[in-house]
Amino acid sequence: MIIQLKASAGKSGLEKIVSHLAQDGVPRERLDIFSGDTYTLVGVKGDAGKLDLDKYQALDYVLTVHRISDPFKELSRQFHPDDTLIELRGGHCLGRDLSVIAGPCAIESREQLFRTAELVARAGANILRGGAFKPRTIHRSFQGLGEEGLKLLAEAREAVGLPVISEIMDARDIPLFVEYDIDIWQVGARNCLNYTFLDALSQVPNPKPVLLKRGDHVSLNELLGAALRLYEGNPQVILCERGDKTADRVHRNVLNLNNVSYLKHHYHLPVIVDPSHGTGVRELVGDLGLAGMAAGADGLMVEVHHQPEKALCDGAQSLNQEFAALVPLAADIHRMRNALSAAQAAKYGGLAAMAG
Amino acid sequence: MIIQLKASAGKSGLEKIVSHLAQDGVPRERLDIFSGDTYTLVGVKGDAGKLDLDKYQALDYVLTVHRISDPFKELSRQFHPDDTLIELRGGHCLGRDLSVIAGPCAIESREQLFRTAELVARAGANILRGGAFKPRTIHRSFQGLGEEGLKLLAEAREAVGLPVISEIMDARDIPLFVEYDIDIWQVGARNCLNYTFLDALSQVPNPKPVLLKRGDHVSLNELLGAALRLYEGNPQVILCERGDKTADRVHRNVLNLNNVSYLKHHYHLPVIVDPSHGTGVRELVGDLGLAGMAAGADGLMVEVHHQPEKALCDGAQSLNQEFAALVPLAADIHRMRNALSAAQAAKYGGLAAMAG
Amino acid sequence: MIIQLKASAGKSGLEKIVSHLAQDGVPRERLDIFSGDTYTLVGVKGDAGKLDLDKYQALDYVLTVHRISDPFKELSRQFHPDDTLIELRGGHCLGRDLSVIAGPCAIESREQLFRTAELVARAGANILRGGAFKPRTIHRSFQGLGEEGLKLLAEAREAVGLPVISEIMDARDIPLFVEYDIDIWQVGARNCLNYTFLDALSQVPNPKPVLLKRGDHVSLNELLGAALRLYEGNPQVILCERGDKTADRVHRNVLNLNNVSYLKHHYHLPVIVDPSHGTGVRELVGDLGLAGMAAGADGLMVEVHHQPEKALCDGAQSLNQEFAALVPLAADIHRMRNALSAAQAAKYGGLAAMAG
Amino acid sequence: MIIQLKASAGKSGLEKIVSHLAQDGVPRERLDIFSGDTYTLVGVKGDAGKLDLDKYQALDYVLTVHRISDPFKELSRQFHPDDTLIELRGGHCLGRDLSVIAGPCAIESREQLFRTAELVARAGANILRGGAFKPRTIHRSFQGLGEEGLKLLAEAREAVGLPVISEIMDARDIPLFVEYDIDIWQVGARNCLNYTFLDALSQVPNPKPVLLKRGDHVSLNELLGAALRLYEGNPQVILCERGDKTADRVHRNVLNLNNVSYLKHHYHLPVIVDPSHGTGVRELVGDLGLAGMAAGADGLMVEVHHQPEKALCDGAQSLNQEFAALVPLAADIHRMRNALSAAQAAKYGGLAAMAG
Repeated sequence: MIIQLKASAGKSGLEKIVSHLAQDGVPRERLDIFSGDTYTLVGVKGDAGKLDLDKYQALDYVLTVHRISDPFKELSRQFHPDDTLIELRGGHCLGRDLSVIAGPCAIESREQLFRTAELVARAGANILRGGAFKPRTIHRSFQGLGEEGLKLLAEAREAVGLPVISEIMDARDIPLFVEYDIDIWQVGARNCLNYTFLDALSQVPNPKPVLLKRGDHVSLNELLGAALRLYEGNPQVILCERGDKTADRVHRNVLNLNNVSYLKHHYHLPVIVDPSHGTGVRELVGDLGLAGMAAGADGLMVEVHHQPEKALCDGAQSLNQEFAALVPLAADIHRMRNALSAAQAAKYGGLAAMAG
Repeated sequence: MIIQLKASAGKSGLEKIVSHLAQDGVPRERLDIFSGDTYTLVGVKGDAGKLDLDKYQALDYVLTVHRISDPFKELSRQFHPDDTLIELRGGHCLGRDLSVIAGPCAIESREQLFRTAELVARAGANILRGGAFKPRTIHRSFQGLGEEGLKLLAEAREAVGLPVISEIMDARDIPLFVEYDIDIWQVGARNCLNYTFLDALSQVPNPKPVLLKRGDHVSLNELLGAALRLYEGNPQVILCERGDKTADRVHRNVLNLNNVSYLKHHYHLPVIVDPSHGTGVRELVGDLGLAGMAAGADGLMVEVHHQPEKALCDGAQSLNQEFAALVPLAADIHRMRNALSAAQAAKYGGLAAMAG
Repeated sequence: MIIQLKASAGKSGLEKIVSHLAQDGVPRERLDIFSGDTYTLVGVKGDAGKLDLDKYQALDYVLTVHRISDPFKELSRQFHPDDTLIELRGGHCLGRDLSVIAGPCAIESREQLFRTAELVARAGANILRGGAFKPRTIHRSFQGLGEEGLKLLAEAREAVGLPVISEIMDARDIPLFVEYDIDIWQVGARNCLNYTFLDALSQVPNPKPVLLKRGDHVSLNELLGAALRLYEGNPQVILCERGDKTADRVHRNVLNLNNVSYLKHHYHLPVIVDPSHGTGVRELVGDLGLAGMAAGADGLMVEVHHQPEKALCDGAQSLNQEFAALVPLAADIHRMRNALSAAQAAKYGGLAAMAG
Repeated sequence: MIIQLKASAGKSGLEKIVSHLAQDGVPRERLDIFSGDTYTLVGVKGDAGKLDLDKYQALDYVLTVHRISDPFKELSRQFHPDDTLIELRGGHCLGRDLSVIAGPCAIESREQLFRTAELVARAGANILRGGAFKPRTIHRSFQGLGEEGLKLLAEAREAVGLPVISEIMDARDIPLFVEYDIDIWQVGARNCLNYTFLDALSQVPNPKPVLLKRGDHVSLNELLGAALRLYEGNPQVILCERGDKTADRVHRNVLNLNNVSYLKHHYHLPVIVDPSHGTGVRELVGDLGLAGMAAGADGLMVEVHHQPEKALCDGAQSLNQEFAALVPLAADIHRMRNALSAAQAAKYGGLAAMAG
């Protein structure tokens, strides 16, 4: 941590900051003090992870405070260079293999789920998604089938032989997710910063992998802070980029692929892109899915409905036939990035730092 | 609800939409069909509140769907013209009287809380705030004193004679908030769209007023949807505007006072402005607090710390002496707006629609 | 300027940066070098205004670069504590007196302009606005009357005795603005960062005051950079806040009053608020105008049309009778802030730093 | 155009709107009037392109107004299904061939330009970029070599045999761009909505292709409106996506690839992606460039400097060796998208609508 004092702080400012740091357990020996003609800088040697930036920032005589070390170092490639790999039922390895997560937004009926599951399995999906609990802005809308949905999803898993993912919205539903042995537990965008919920998930014994969606306008540091809460109890954390609302009324959401590239360069957790929510309109889903793969994502999560005209929610985003065309293209790009990584990791660090 | 079909929809598109609506319980008699040369419009007569816009929007042959009626009509002045008034311990009426909520961001110790409570009471605050549970991005930071904090807050209430407000972060803490009889339960910005939590709060018997903070980049419709969840079980809902993150690195957050004016014009719930979080920097707090009052807010929530240099969190925002100067000015503006409303409500609807 | 090297920079990094700075005319004697165990900092003593931050930021071994001194010091209160005051025809002093700028968005006809001018003069406006050149997104829309508009505006000035403001969009129109002796030349939001145009305006001999509108999503540093271009040739620069587009579809624009407070605290140029464009909807204009005054603005710019139903552009924002109610309230708040400033400038720097 | 009246408008509202439309040249016969129990809709048959939406929106008794037809129909695939192709010196066809535009941000010297030009030509670039006029936020920074830069660029064009692109900032520089026969004239982000400048460019006789960069937070409709101004005088318009500022302080800009996909689906102009400005940091440029290609772009514009450590501006974004690795990957993705388009255009409209 480096603290820059205001020009007006003077000697007394310096004395006060030294005494403050001492109260927080940082003795004078751990400080480097550097006085120029227009500034005074105080550097803290060693681990400053427990010091509260905001507190120091609040001091009247302090201009800026910044950390030197990454506060999310457990997630960083600096301390853990290799990709986190997540083994799923049936042998699929998320983080190494291309992961294509597909299925309906909401599970509506056995027939709808099974038909869609067959459709996506045939088209090359390797993880089946289906929502049993649905958060809705207007709460009298359809909220999902609940436990019945999880039960159907577990049956569909048997039928098509794919691991399954479903959103959990409440710590009180943990026993249900355990009972139906859901393979990946999804935390939705609205719960991304729901810390008590994240802490509850982190404490589940023998936990399953958790996919954490970035919430609307949640910053990468907020996302990493949330991921770290999960990670400390359960290292199988998957990040998911799904875009932000935007002032351009032409779009419902805009996917942030700078995030994908940044996360893959600096952190070791797998990253999935959700072009369905990241666009909100069917005609853009394929393009943005491919773009996400090209930016370095480990896979895609796509809403597919066997009859999109009948889907009860988010229907505007559901692909069907187009999905079958998308999978081989995503695989091509995934292969291209892997080849690049393998061949050039040493030579061109910039492009290839996300090597598998 | 009005549905506009695509130019290409043709007769078959019209037949399909009529059949869809019939399946959703809207018979042909409730439809107005209007065919121009370049468009076909279908109007649904009567209550369309239970129809799912997204579902209709998803249909291939549909161009746009929009509601005619406000989906939040219970909150609307159209159905409930008068302001919601909230009576608090000691006779303060939030929504009628100017409400000045002040106190430390986090309760740190008995001494800190009591000193600050006395300071703000003397300066004219009429509600005491103090955080016992604190959500923090980096979860090893100070998280609040928990139950001990609530206990101290209840004691400070006796000492200074002001009702108290504190943030609740988890449905499991409901019994504690009941036990210490917290006068206003605050839902923080990160939980603004945590629907299972809102539903749990809505079901508390004999509920206390709830102050719902707008989350970062949460839209007004999302906020109203969240407020309605609370409102159905507990009509004592208070909205709080606290700003959004911004791309201009000069600011930490930017307060949205268009929201305050819009909410007061169209809805009957009281609105509080939080200029402390809405600016993130002490020197702007007073100005933005006054601006919030001028925009029509019912009150302010301000962080005050008797020794801001020692505050453990959000210290950069804590006022102290400046607070004493702020209260009478806020009261002047509150009086001015009330006078305006009383005298001119009939004549100048535009400016005065928020009359008390 | 303080440059922080990467941990990996080592001795060679330090040597390279020293040699770089020497090439840019900063000798070793002007450098403070500070090496901690995990960082190396290089401080540049004296004026670093001509060094290019980006260039240093680009160096492979550099982590961060930041300025100590304000790059806009000519505009800063640190170097020029007193408010810039702008004397206008007829004795109005912008920056000292409350400035109420009102009139039609676009001048449409002699009758429309004169009727509106009389209406606003009677209601208390002290500057008349009227657009002769109108930038329009869809360029086949009405673009303004051009020279004929300026001529009518000059005539209306005589009729009502108020100085006038109009938007200039092109350096080629400078002779027209000189010929009709327009009292304040407005630079619109779309031209806020049009540097060649700003430079042309800056070089006009015997220049008139220029009002510079902040463009959509233009940051304060970008705005100040643009203002400084004008200021160097013409110190009579007025800043104008008019809001940004937003992802919340309820609003057309959202006014940024944090900007107003920040600018008044740190810089000496007058600041006008435009609640008409800053809201885009008539019912919010009054509230946001008052809020802008409470945040510290020197005045308001409001669109008023004598028959808003017939206005050719931006009609949704035009007030008429409401305007008459708004002026005395704005004056009350202006008085309140002035009193505050006079009485408490010394005592409560935070709230009162914008004293007149 | 469809106008929806307010519920309160009544018969008199309907009469007024009919009379308004008549004044604007739309007779009663061109109107469809549709009255439901809670709404009244007025549809305008035929071309409503010259009617001003805002004007109608401003009427007190009007709830909403929306266009049926695209106001940018000259740019739309509906009226011009085929891609616009732009033939450049030497036979390169922008819009059909992969376009790789590369070179230094600013031309600094003959040596720097020629070395970089050779480097990028060898690596597969087919258009050479180089800035002679540079807009800078802080105007005392290096502003470019001006005419000398254009002259060097024209010489470098001869040396490496590539067409060249450079930014024009001022209509007064048109003769210079004509004299040095610059192959593509770039309009920078800050001038994206500078309508008088766009109009001046549109009127150049025998014009060269113009590349129009989307400005920060400029909406697609604003961009298309600006493009249409150019297009009416010069159909060789190229759009360029370069991202927006963002509230997440980890990024300098975030590229909007939803824009690329949307533009390619609906409009026929070529689209180039600028990942250098769209990220602002070297390590993300390659990933986002590939992502842009995967989203459907016709090419990339990348800053390359033979010695990035010495670049005078935007150095943090300049690639060099990584560039050589990027080109073949971009070409692979371009081929993949073309193959997809050719084979599946008929079958999967959604993914393949951008077929060449």
